[in-house]
Amino acid sequence: MNEHADEGDLTRDAFLGGRLTLSQPKAGYRAGVDPVLLAASVPARSGETLLDLGCGAGAAMLCCAVRVPGLRVTGLERQTGYAALARRNADENGLDAEVLTGDLAEMPSALRQRQFTHVIANPPYFDRSTGVAATDPGREGALGEATPLSAWVDVGARRTAPKGTLTIIHQAARAPELLTAMAQHLGSLELLPLIPRRGRAARLVLLRGRKNGRAPFRLHDGWLLHEGAQHDGDRDSYTPATAAILREGAALTFPQES
Amino acid sequence: MNEHADEGDLTRDAFLGGRLTLSQPKAGYRAGVDPVLLAASVPARSGETLLDLGCGAGAAMLCCAVRVPGLRVTGLERQTGYAALARRNADENGLDAEVLTGDLAEMPSALRQRQFTHVIANPPYFDRSTGVAATDPGREGALGEATPLSAWVDVGARRTAPKGTLTIIHQAARAPELLTAMAQHLGSLELLPLIPRRGRAARLVLLRGRKNGRAPFRLHDGWLLHEGAQHDGDRDSYTPATAAILREGAALTFPQES
Repeated sequence: MNEHADEGDLTRDAFLGGRLTLSQPKAGYRAGVDPVLLAASVPARSGETLLDLGCGAGAAMLCCAVRVPGLRVTGLERQTGYAALARRNADENGLDAEVLTGDLAEMPSALRQRQFTHVIANPPYFDRSTGVAATDPGREGALGEATPLSAWVDVGARRTAPKGTLTIIHQAARAPELLTAMAQHLGSLELLPLIPRRGRAARLVLLRGRKNGRAPFRLHDGWLLHEGAQHDGDRDSYTPATAAILREGAALTFPQES
Repeated sequence: MNEHADEGDLTRDAFLGGRLTLSQPKAGYRAGVDPVLLAASVPARSGETLLDLGCGAGAAMLCCAVRVPGLRVTGLERQTGYAALARRNADENGLDAEVLTGDLAEMPSALRQRQFTHVIANPPYFDRSTGVAATDPGREGALGEATPLSAWVDVGARRTAPKGTLTIIHQAARAPELLTAMAQHLGSLELLPLIPRRGRAARLVLLRGRKNGRAPFRLHDGWLLHEGAQHDGDRDSYTPATAAILREGAALTFPQES
């Protein structure tokens, strides 16, 4: 999409039970439940700061801002059209948000001096192993193909303040790669499998690391998204805990154990 | 333990509901449920071959032999006392098993020429990150400290036949390291978290890879070991599916999906 989106090319979609309304392009990337789950999982408090890497139209960071009043949110987005939409979405919802236009691979200098209590990312689900190999980094950037997952982790970790968290939502199939990258930069890693239905493999995972964390890796019992053995054509198949996140803006708290 | 164990230093323990009885040293490593779960998870069939790396007194390989008649099992064990016990345990249960004495790091030449349909390992749960650092490989070998997990994976993958499987059971906290190592040698990785009770983090994981496998990584919904919210002092808290494995010799089949 270009910088000045035509109203006819946009939809207005309600999130968090109507607490947040986002203008999104009809074509291109449209936020679903993934950024909402990511935002719900961030252990953020009022007065802290949050950076959303690749914020798109702002779904994840604005969900955070709604749930945690007093959280100062910043988004980085490479595409100027989405960055403009993220600013507009913040304004239209009466939320403060700073949106910077720039690329992960060439972080704006204003950001390179800053660190955040929490960094989040929902990198594009582009599978390099089955897609067109882009071995030339210049060509990859020029064509807008996927930034390697390891770069998302590397940049995210650099922008995370000491004791701060980096949380990423991504396809479960890429979990080994993500874990390998996270383990190089962060500690106290926690992996939460998002299980579509009991007994099914995870489609998505939430992976969190803490800067300077020293706790062992924790693999949590899966977070169940839907009840029942199969899709019944009814959106009410979400488990109560998942519905509370999506429709009431509840937090998704990683299980705590003594 | 030394090569000729004194009967007074041994116990005889029933596994698989009495289908297997193992003599084990009172002191030192004693098989619990972990090798039984590992053995139950191997997708082995009659006529195939299996190698148990670090077989100890033979629990895992002999559980496999009991469950899969016609499976040809081989164990490799560094300590001569345990290797002798594994041979004795095979004999006393009327099972054919080949037991070789040797170290992972210096694989016996007879084994170096062979590959197996299935390779399994239950490496010692020694956490190098919190234990005494043994940076000198010679010293590490001499003191009998942990062979690095990556070496177990490397050796296991080399001994796995094309399209064969390598399956490892280990502490969940080491899953990132295991996944990183497995991804270097094998494909079609599958991780099955073993969940003590619903909502608790995994204590152990089963990780399987396939030689020349090309399927994406799969993170399964956790396998539930116990029912109820907490230990009730009754060994019958095992879930029916887990009890069937431990007491009836049932298979632990990784979830299959279309």
